[in-house]
Amino acid sequence: MIIDSHAHVVAPPELYAYQANLVASRGAAGRGRHSISDEQIQRTTEPHIERMKSVGTDMQLISPRPYTLMHSMRPPEIVRYWVEATNNLISRQAQLYPEQFRGVAGLPQSPELPIEVAVEELTRAVTELGFVGALINPDPTEGQGDPPPLSDPFWYPLYAKLVELDVPALVHSAACINPRETFHAHFITEESIAILNLADSKVFDEFPDLKLVIAHGGGSVPYQIGRWRAGRFRKGSGRERFDETLRRFYFDTVLYNQESIELLLKIVGVDRCVFGAEMPGAATVQDPDTGRWMDDVKPLVDAIDWLTPEDKNRLFSENALALYSKVGTIPALATS
Amino acid sequence: MIIDSHAHVVAPPELYAYQANLVASRGAAGRGRHSISDEQIQRTTEPHIERMKSVGTDMQLISPRPYTLMHSMRPPEIVRYWVEATNNLISRQAQLYPEQFRGVAGLPQSPELPIEVAVEELTRAVTELGFVGALINPDPTEGQGDPPPLSDPFWYPLYAKLVELDVPALVHSAACINPRETFHAHFITEESIAILNLADSKVFDEFPDLKLVIAHGGGSVPYQIGRWRAGRFRKGSGRERFDETLRRFYFDTVLYNQESIELLLKIVGVDRCVFGAEMPGAATVQDPDTGRWMDDVKPLVDAIDWLTPEDKNRLFSENALALYSKVGTIPALATS
Repeated sequence: MIIDSHAHVVAPPELYAYQANLVASRGAAGRGRHSISDEQIQRTTEPHIERMKSVGTDMQLISPRPYTLMHSMRPPEIVRYWVEATNNLISRQAQLYPEQFRGVAGLPQSPELPIEVAVEELTRAVTELGFVGALINPDPTEGQGDPPPLSDPFWYPLYAKLVELDVPALVHSAACINPRETFHAHFITEESIAILNLADSKVFDEFPDLKLVIAHGGGSVPYQIGRWRAGRFRKGSGRERFDETLRRFYFDTVLYNQESIELLLKIVGVDRCVFGAEMPGAATVQDPDTGRWMDDVKPLVDAIDWLTPEDKNRLFSENALALYSKVGTIPALATS
Repeated sequence: MIIDSHAHVVAPPELYAYQANLVASRGAAGRGRHSISDEQIQRTTEPHIERMKSVGTDMQLISPRPYTLMHSMRPPEIVRYWVEATNNLISRQAQLYPEQFRGVAGLPQSPELPIEVAVEELTRAVTELGFVGALINPDPTEGQGDPPPLSDPFWYPLYAKLVELDVPALVHSAACINPRETFHAHFITEESIAILNLADSKVFDEFPDLKLVIAHGGGSVPYQIGRWRAGRFRKGSGRERFDETLRRFYFDTVLYNQESIELLLKIVGVDRCVFGAEMPGAATVQDPDTGRWMDDVKPLVDAIDWLTPEDKNRLFSENALALYSKVGTIPALATS
């Protein structure tokens, strides 16, 4: 079984038409004021499932497409309505295709909203919609300000609820409103900052069962590990090694080249990684020289000759099944 | 011959006492108002040269220690006086020890200064002090604002002067005044942003002879290369491959672990890399398990079994001698 643990919803255009209307009307379009038929969902989902089958993916854990989350948009009601609509759409897709999809919730994060609003939507998504995890955006300002670092107690109610519900969060930023940095580049920046802030914090002492997955192979951190190992040594003896701290996190293989996936696995360990291809996503394009789809990540993992068949099983499904413990549950209630 | 192309000056405390006075007095301490004897310089330099010898380094290209550059400090006169004093100290050290050191200039960059002020100091450092290169900080706001990206024509007068003088610049940020990001983390962020901004710009068309070295193995970019390859493919046919664009830059080996150095060399090519250890610097600490100094990078390169002896010669000195074409020149004028 192959689980793509890092995937985003392929939604019908009607959903994004609602988003556009929310933005244009500054929220006046209203909460849940859209109507999308099952047929419209099927029309976009079925070609997508064909594509999944063509690369051997059996199941995807799907979340809202992060760059569309518009966490910094004002007024914050827009963020709430939009996240809710996207989570509902994901829920319907998972119910229509329970073999192929599980939901990972977007959260209504906004620099203007208390974290309790995100906690509420997390609870709804997991307990009512049968979602198996959530996204955390460490930078709801979307590159425009100084949000509290993930080490700050600001985030603790969210961590507590994740632990209580026993679901992991995928750390993944959203858009970036900054002329110097694309949202793609900001993803990598924020993943790195997230690890480094948490690594030197009390968060894992306070929440030893907190499960955080760092997207895209952990940003820059596995590659730059020498710097962080040394930094930890400089703090004096008796401290946990940085490598041990790094192994408190989980990582996905959304890297798109074999050498980097190998580096990730060597640095953090096969047991801390889950397969992810983010298909479709940043790398949904063919290499013009080889015709290979860049987001077809499975052959890159298969080609790593020092991985045992057991290692590959762990990466492709067993680790994800253990980490996302609710994946085995068939999605529950239908909502619209 | 072993050249550590990425090193920072080990200066006597009297230099930093001047810095503290400049800051405390908001510049009223005045330009060049300090006096450091040759003996004071020797007292800090000689133990440092012993340390260089102990790891086999013959020569270091030394620049101001970036996190001390305080580019965002106001008023900007402080930045000018301080950079000038540090460059002068480096020049004196290089003259006292012409076999061991060459200067790489800090530049007086400030959000409040035109780039021409940096161009002026670059010219002085190269033509009067015999320096072989300079540092460029892509973020003189030090994490507090939105400086023009390196793709912006704001920087063109500096690029033009680097080309005219035929010296490379090492892209290396300075401090970071941001509770979320240490200066160490900001280095990696800014190196990544620098590559990505330049890669999609006209800068190398306008300045085909511009030589830019990206510090610390290129930030996150070699590790995250799959994302950038795909992004380039998505821009359509006829575009230069991202790998080719990446080979317009140079990189140093300041990574501190063998796997990451190997990844760098495989992705960008041995011919685009220069040896760097930044000794002393971020990794000047012993691994308590092995006793190994983390900034002793040479054995990590030596251990890479697929590098030929010629490759290693290129990495350890030949590439640096070609890139920093003025390294062969003995430092010129004495200044104080």
